[in-house]
Amino acid sequence: MSLVVIGTVAFDALETPFGKTDKIVGGAATYIGLSASYSVKPVKVVAVVGDDFPQSDILSLQEHGVDTEGLQIKQGEKSFFWSGKYSNDLNSRETLVTELNVLADFDPIIPDSYQDCKYLMLGNLTPQIQRLVIQRLVNRPKLIVMDTMNFWMDVALDELKTTIEMVDVLSINDEEARQLSGVHSLVKAAKIIMAMGPKYLIIKKGEHGALLFHKNKVFYAPALPLEEVFDPTGAGDTFAGGFIGHLAATDDISFDNMKRAVIHGSAMASFCVEKFGTERLLNLTQEEIEAREQQFADLVAVIPATAVQNV
Amino acid sequence: MSLVVIGTVAFDALETPFGKTDKIVGGAATYIGLSASYSVKPVKVVAVVGDDFPQSDILSLQEHGVDTEGLQIKQGEKSFFWSGKYSNDLNSRETLVTELNVLADFDPIIPDSYQDCKYLMLGNLTPQIQRLVIQRLVNRPKLIVMDTMNFWMDVALDELKTTIEMVDVLSINDEEARQLSGVHSLVKAAKIIMAMGPKYLIIKKGEHGALLFHKNKVFYAPALPLEEVFDPTGAGDTFAGGFIGHLAATDDISFDNMKRAVIHGSAMASFCVEKFGTERLLNLTQEEIEAREQQFADLVAVIPATAVQNV
Repeated sequence: MSLVVIGTVAFDALETPFGKTDKIVGGAATYIGLSASYSVKPVKVVAVVGDDFPQSDILSLQEHGVDTEGLQIKQGEKSFFWSGKYSNDLNSRETLVTELNVLADFDPIIPDSYQDCKYLMLGNLTPQIQRLVIQRLVNRPKLIVMDTMNFWMDVALDELKTTIEMVDVLSINDEEARQLSGVHSLVKAAKIIMAMGPKYLIIKKGEHGALLFHKNKVFYAPALPLEEVFDPTGAGDTFAGGFIGHLAATDDISFDNMKRAVIHGSAMASFCVEKFGTERLLNLTQEEIEAREQQFADLVAVIPATAVQNV
Repeated sequence: MSLVVIGTVAFDALETPFGKTDKIVGGAATYIGLSASYSVKPVKVVAVVGDDFPQSDILSLQEHGVDTEGLQIKQGEKSFFWSGKYSNDLNSRETLVTELNVLADFDPIIPDSYQDCKYLMLGNLTPQIQRLVIQRLVNRPKLIVMDTMNFWMDVALDELKTTIEMVDVLSINDEEARQLSGVHSLVKAAKIIMAMGPKYLIIKKGEHGALLFHKNKVFYAPALPLEEVFDPTGAGDTFAGGFIGHLAATDDISFDNMKRAVIHGSAMASFCVEKFGTERLLNLTQEEIEAREQQFADLVAVIPATAVQNV
């Protein structure tokens, strides 16, 4: 069930209340690819880096089952770089540096071997480039999942809406859902956004979990209450990677299976935040993942009462 | 399973983005009593009002199964009055007026007929008065649930801690849990607060649901995503009333039954916010309540997959 992922492969420099990093490997496609690789291999990545990107990190992706044939390496250019600093409660972050570098004129080339794409994950990028990938696939994938962010709502709303219209599942956070719909109630926002095209909408609420909407149905996946969130970077991408990875692995896009995919994605994201960057995603076992998914199931499990209330 | 509730019976004047009210009946004991009355009757209330409190509203409480023998009516005095205005997103509110009136020298008198108390709900009040009620009960109740608020943390922290030490279940919101514990992580906060005395801790997260902690166990009850929240006043009290009402009705304080009590309380709170004040709580049917509880169950329900991931 061929899975293609487009997004950034980049450098991040992070500062959280618990420490700071030098340039480490990040980017939406990196997190998505690593996360999805625990469900399905290969994960075919379309992205661009400069010649400053370490070969060892490309090898590391490959070892995890990430196909890098679609990863362009631009000689004499530098990789995309983002630096940010999180607030003390990790609920907000400030961008310190954004250097587009190779992203400035990124032209996504789809290798022939990617044309069997059945599941397409559009990681956060300019909506024009996301659309170009859809257009360059000869056959429309069975399922297209799109992630985006408020930045594109601010600077390219019409382009964004054109791309949103073409996808099956949109994944955004609560504030982005409110901005895109213009209403505060997430239930109302979901209706407005699904009327824009996507049949499914995922609203991520960070430490409060995620909502999956489809027609009049709604599913609530809580987040695991964690003792410590170390670094939230990449959590949303890791969630998306787990979500589409599970769907691609099972090749089942029923609403019931999407619920399971949301739980799996939430479990993957709960690992991601335990360490800086991709560190935790590089060394997971299936046993750890299954145990974490069981924790999610236990968290909301209620045994039905046999007793009847005595009113 | 005798249930005693202490709290305010009062007047509120509310302003939300959807409208405003004149003085209407409110108060923690009113919401708790009405909510619990759908599980167990009678609900024995200890409170105080002035002679301005309408007899018709006392009759209305009685018709719902609220025992008002412990409701003192102070001649020549006025009832507690609170007026508040909510922000546009309903996430914060500003107190416009607080008139203590009869509350200023409230001396809670426990009628003899209340001494069979097995379940005690301490609605939000000064921690000294909450403690006095515990002390005036000849036998310690089987379960004591306490609600409080950040105000007492600001002005009477030592008194508050003395009372918290005496109760079994503490119910507070996320910001209050952070303030009381001094830490941001709710998992850490729960450990710190349970070390202060309560064996169980409920952390209410408003539109994000509620967490129930006990020892190393945690249960997450999501809130129902609502199209419209009309007036959040009393939602926390209504939750608490539903919670202890369910426990008293079933006389089962196992962790499994506490989970069901949290779901029931959440369902009751989801009704409360649909109309101004107590309006919605005055006219519920068991069928409506059961249907709403089913919605909560459906919201998190996942059918286990039979298929195995093909990694």
